[in-house]
Amino acid sequence: MSASENVAELMAQYRTGFSLPGPLYYDADVFEMEMKAIFGTQWLFACNECEVKEPGDYLTLEVGRNSIIIVRDDNGEVQAFHNTCRHRGSRVCQEHKGTVGRLVCPYHQWTYDLDGTLLSATQMPEDFDPRRYSLKPVHAANVAGLIYICLAEAPPDLDHFKRTVTPYIAPHQPARTKVAFESVLIEKANWKLVIENNRECYHCAGNHPELLVSLVEAALPNDTRTHWFSELMLRKAQEWDALGLPHRPADGGIEFRCIRLPFNEGVTSMTMDGKPACKKLVGDLTERDLGSVRMFHVPNNWNHFLSDHIIHFRVLPRGPMETEVRTTWLVHEDAIEGWDYDVDRLKEVWQITNQQDQHLAEQNFLGVRSDAYEPGPYSPAGEFMILDFNRWYMATLAAHLPPGAPGLRVAAE
Amino acid sequence: MSASENVAELMAQYRTGFSLPGPLYYDADVFEMEMKAIFGTQWLFACNECEVKEPGDYLTLEVGRNSIIIVRDDNGEVQAFHNTCRHRGSRVCQEHKGTVGRLVCPYHQWTYDLDGTLLSATQMPEDFDPRRYSLKPVHAANVAGLIYICLAEAPPDLDHFKRTVTPYIAPHQPARTKVAFESVLIEKANWKLVIENNRECYHCAGNHPELLVSLVEAALPNDTRTHWFSELMLRKAQEWDALGLPHRPADGGIEFRCIRLPFNEGVTSMTMDGKPACKKLVGDLTERDLGSVRMFHVPNNWNHFLSDHIIHFRVLPRGPMETEVRTTWLVHEDAIEGWDYDVDRLKEVWQITNQQDQHLAEQNFLGVRSDAYEPGPYSPAGEFMILDFNRWYMATLAAHLPPGAPGLRVAAE
Amino acid sequence: MSASENVAELMAQYRTGFSLPGPLYYDADVFEMEMKAIFGTQWLFACNECEVKEPGDYLTLEVGRNSIIIVRDDNGEVQAFHNTCRHRGSRVCQEHKGTVGRLVCPYHQWTYDLDGTLLSATQMPEDFDPRRYSLKPVHAANVAGLIYICLAEAPPDLDHFKRTVTPYIAPHQPARTKVAFESVLIEKANWKLVIENNRECYHCAGNHPELLVSLVEAALPNDTRTHWFSELMLRKAQEWDALGLPHRPADGGIEFRCIRLPFNEGVTSMTMDGKPACKKLVGDLTERDLGSVRMFHVPNNWNHFLSDHIIHFRVLPRGPMETEVRTTWLVHEDAIEGWDYDVDRLKEVWQITNQQDQHLAEQNFLGVRSDAYEPGPYSPAGEFMILDFNRWYMATLAAHLPPGAPGLRVAAE
Repeated sequence: MSASENVAELMAQYRTGFSLPGPLYYDADVFEMEMKAIFGTQWLFACNECEVKEPGDYLTLEVGRNSIIIVRDDNGEVQAFHNTCRHRGSRVCQEHKGTVGRLVCPYHQWTYDLDGTLLSATQMPEDFDPRRYSLKPVHAANVAGLIYICLAEAPPDLDHFKRTVTPYIAPHQPARTKVAFESVLIEKANWKLVIENNRECYHCAGNHPELLVSLVEAALPNDTRTHWFSELMLRKAQEWDALGLPHRPADGGIEFRCIRLPFNEGVTSMTMDGKPACKKLVGDLTERDLGSVRMFHVPNNWNHFLSDHIIHFRVLPRGPMETEVRTTWLVHEDAIEGWDYDVDRLKEVWQITNQQDQHLAEQNFLGVRSDAYEPGPYSPAGEFMILDFNRWYMATLAAHLPPGAPGLRVAAE
Repeated sequence: MSASENVAELMAQYRTGFSLPGPLYYDADVFEMEMKAIFGTQWLFACNECEVKEPGDYLTLEVGRNSIIIVRDDNGEVQAFHNTCRHRGSRVCQEHKGTVGRLVCPYHQWTYDLDGTLLSATQMPEDFDPRRYSLKPVHAANVAGLIYICLAEAPPDLDHFKRTVTPYIAPHQPARTKVAFESVLIEKANWKLVIENNRECYHCAGNHPELLVSLVEAALPNDTRTHWFSELMLRKAQEWDALGLPHRPADGGIEFRCIRLPFNEGVTSMTMDGKPACKKLVGDLTERDLGSVRMFHVPNNWNHFLSDHIIHFRVLPRGPMETEVRTTWLVHEDAIEGWDYDVDRLKEVWQITNQQDQHLAEQNFLGVRSDAYEPGPYSPAGEFMILDFNRWYMATLAAHLPPGAPGLRVAAE
Repeated sequence: MSASENVAELMAQYRTGFSLPGPLYYDADVFEMEMKAIFGTQWLFACNECEVKEPGDYLTLEVGRNSIIIVRDDNGEVQAFHNTCRHRGSRVCQEHKGTVGRLVCPYHQWTYDLDGTLLSATQMPEDFDPRRYSLKPVHAANVAGLIYICLAEAPPDLDHFKRTVTPYIAPHQPARTKVAFESVLIEKANWKLVIENNRECYHCAGNHPELLVSLVEAALPNDTRTHWFSELMLRKAQEWDALGLPHRPADGGIEFRCIRLPFNEGVTSMTMDGKPACKKLVGDLTERDLGSVRMFHVPNNWNHFLSDHIIHFRVLPRGPMETEVRTTWLVHEDAIEGWDYDVDRLKEVWQITNQQDQHLAEQNFLGVRSDAYEPGPYSPAGEFMILDFNRWYMATLAAHLPPGAPGLRVAAE
């Protein structure tokens, strides 16, 4: 049985409304196909553009086995390259972040311009043509200050996403922020369980007391289960309309979500007491009580845009069994630590929430690997966003299967 | 070549009287077949029932990737379940042992009765039928206080074993004990090498000086090699007959062994000086000089039942290359630590013996993985019990091969 | 696709003059074939004979999964055996080095003579023939004090190498040395990247300031790039000719290299200041200014023979992703630590150089595993010795492929 036959057979076992067949969470063939069909094809969130503020500032990230350099070039554009020297393949940038004049491979000093062009390589013969040995480019796109990359030669469309979400997040001016804190967790769980965990708050009541100080578990604009929330939503909608801040659910289909939702009554930030985390607001905002814009984009990114800070979450698989979750807390670029904000207070809620989620995803993964695991039913009320994610996942994977494979039928349903 | 063809070919290389062909100790296909044919089919020792004494007391164990819950239900029965929530698969019990009122999955609070029935699941739709989502049951059997489990739907017969060994071990009343000490070793060796190590005392003279204070290396009731032992055995047999304690080898075939054998002259317990480990005897015993009942049951359990304590050994593979060995030392439930027994003294001999055996099994495994390894001859005098084990192993594996596979021939010999 | 078809397809992608196709550096099939075609077939450097000076002195090393014992027998000959007991396969020698009277397996005390013959095995039946259970021999050869081993039944010719290099290294009398320091690095890189790193000094200028105190980067006897070096070489050649010390490049083809080259002007040893590392010279040498004999032998060994010490490097793969590099610094057997030499000073340059090389090889390996890696062009001027190594590698691997496989064509070019 070939790898794609194996994946197709596993996909054919999928039933809509139920969690995925076990091996889709850990099979090596599935992971290799995901690396091609999803992480090698789709737009992936990389970082905030403020993380590479000046020409020569770079940051690296790992998409599976592939190391990528994000760098600001001399024209002020953010570029992305494969971090593998065209000589013998060495990693060029060997730190997580830094600032350079040129991209110099430490092995034999092959030297690349910030636009990827090979500028010099000593000891090479006269007929050596450096123009054939530029760093391999990776597509990069800037969505209101958020950098997304795509490893495919021909990236899918990003315009609809960009056009749609910009009005929601632009008022928070993500590009005019700075990273106040960064955390990286290595979770022993398949990346899809990390995403599933994020796509529902059914688990919040039992696990996230700190998060629920601010977050309303069942918060949807037309939620009728809780009368008080309907009233709150109505009131906030009027205030936000008056401020010109969009808040209704954006039309993202199953690929992205963007919406502004209120926090609990009286809460203005995601802190332990619900009070502000930073005196200075982001962008040119003057109003504190803005809830947060919640933006999710398949396959690897969600965010909160608050009045006083922004939080980006980035999910990258390291293998079928291990996932990196990077969280960055950003404040206004002119905010002063110790005066405007205290880092411990700023990061507290999501740092503990992340740890709780790591534990949940890891225990989920352990259980899913049991021979006794059988896909169970999602709650349509509490887990509908996972249904969307799984639909997107199955369709995206199916698009890479040979025509006529059994998995296609399922994904087309 | 399919996985079962691979296993069949490896089995066909087996020669009776010789250690197994190398790959049977580490090949991934072999391990997967063992997980089905042996650990997914046979009765496995889990624990002593005193470890889940009261309703709601639970304990978890890992059979390969499968986590199992052992729990005392509200009727006082010991039950076993797969430890994977029927919702999205999370581990339900996340500690090694504990006490609960209900089995509540920490992820979304799906709540199961102690008999596995799903009692509540919030946010599920009206047509959700909780009766279809009980925890998946695992068979559990109580053999005079020892809990065995079987992951198969239709477990093999256990009655002959139970009926046969109960008269030997019942006088020690295992259920009326408590765990005085527990050790868990993770050995970097295939589980079969751990079993082989236990099935012979040929290695004792060179490695286990502490154990040989009590244990007689070549101790068999009809052993004629050592005149003094024949005399000792004869004398003890008369004493034990008078006490109504069975001692002759039970008829366990190649599946189990049960026998009472004397220790060295004057020794009553497995301690460094051969003197008692616990003042209070187990059960209602009044006589100290009882040697020990030695009971082995394929594939994963051996025990010593002494006059003053009981020792259970449980072997569970974590993968082809790694094995968990759990040892529990049990004393009378009313014995008082510090007065009746000292934990250090109680555990001393087997703790050091276990460490010695871990080293031996690990060095054996390293050598077996060499390309130069070639199965060598067992000693018929010193290693006959391994011959039995290997016969059982080959036959059990062969029963899961497709008919006509080469391994079948060998196993049938 | 079979394993050898897979390897053949990967080999067919190789282009002369370019680094290897990525999977040749990490594919599991490739590694298994290398273990047979290279590490199971070729002569491998093991150690200096002074490391097993007296009868019963032994040393063990690991060639992949295969542990090998090097031992001096009672006749004073150096022998090699597979370190796996003929009984049940246990490792016999469980330390890295030691001294024994006989080779006794710790498991059941099977006892072998230092020539590998089984001398005793208790509890075996009368018809047991110990002559059939000698330790499996490994070929060992002594090249002027350097011990090479070969795991094949019929080793390739070593005479040409031995005859050729002996005149270069014999004046340094390697057998009359002692190990002053030994280091073992476990590098997270494929073994071929470790070798490639050693086969060129193109990377030296940017990475090895300490090494370049002594070493001349572009040092070749007929190097015309640097006038000063040509002059130095000419002067040294006359001095060495007068001393009867051979220095011209030996005719080693692509299998070995042997040459004496000068250090930088005024430098006599590989130390931080270029001054001697040991007052007492090796062998019967009286002249300090001898540069070093540089000897490389495929697949796993290079050496420096200086006037005052000798350095051996031994490379052994532990898997496709991990390589052991062992370095030994040897001085005259009568040199006195603290008086003739200081260990820290002796080891300083190569210890730091090794660490730098480990980093380079590991970063190279990370980059090579990227999906974006594409073989790049070697510098003919700076990396010609890698071209030789790769030619040897491809031909040696091809010799183990079935006739007609695509890789053969490439290797024959």
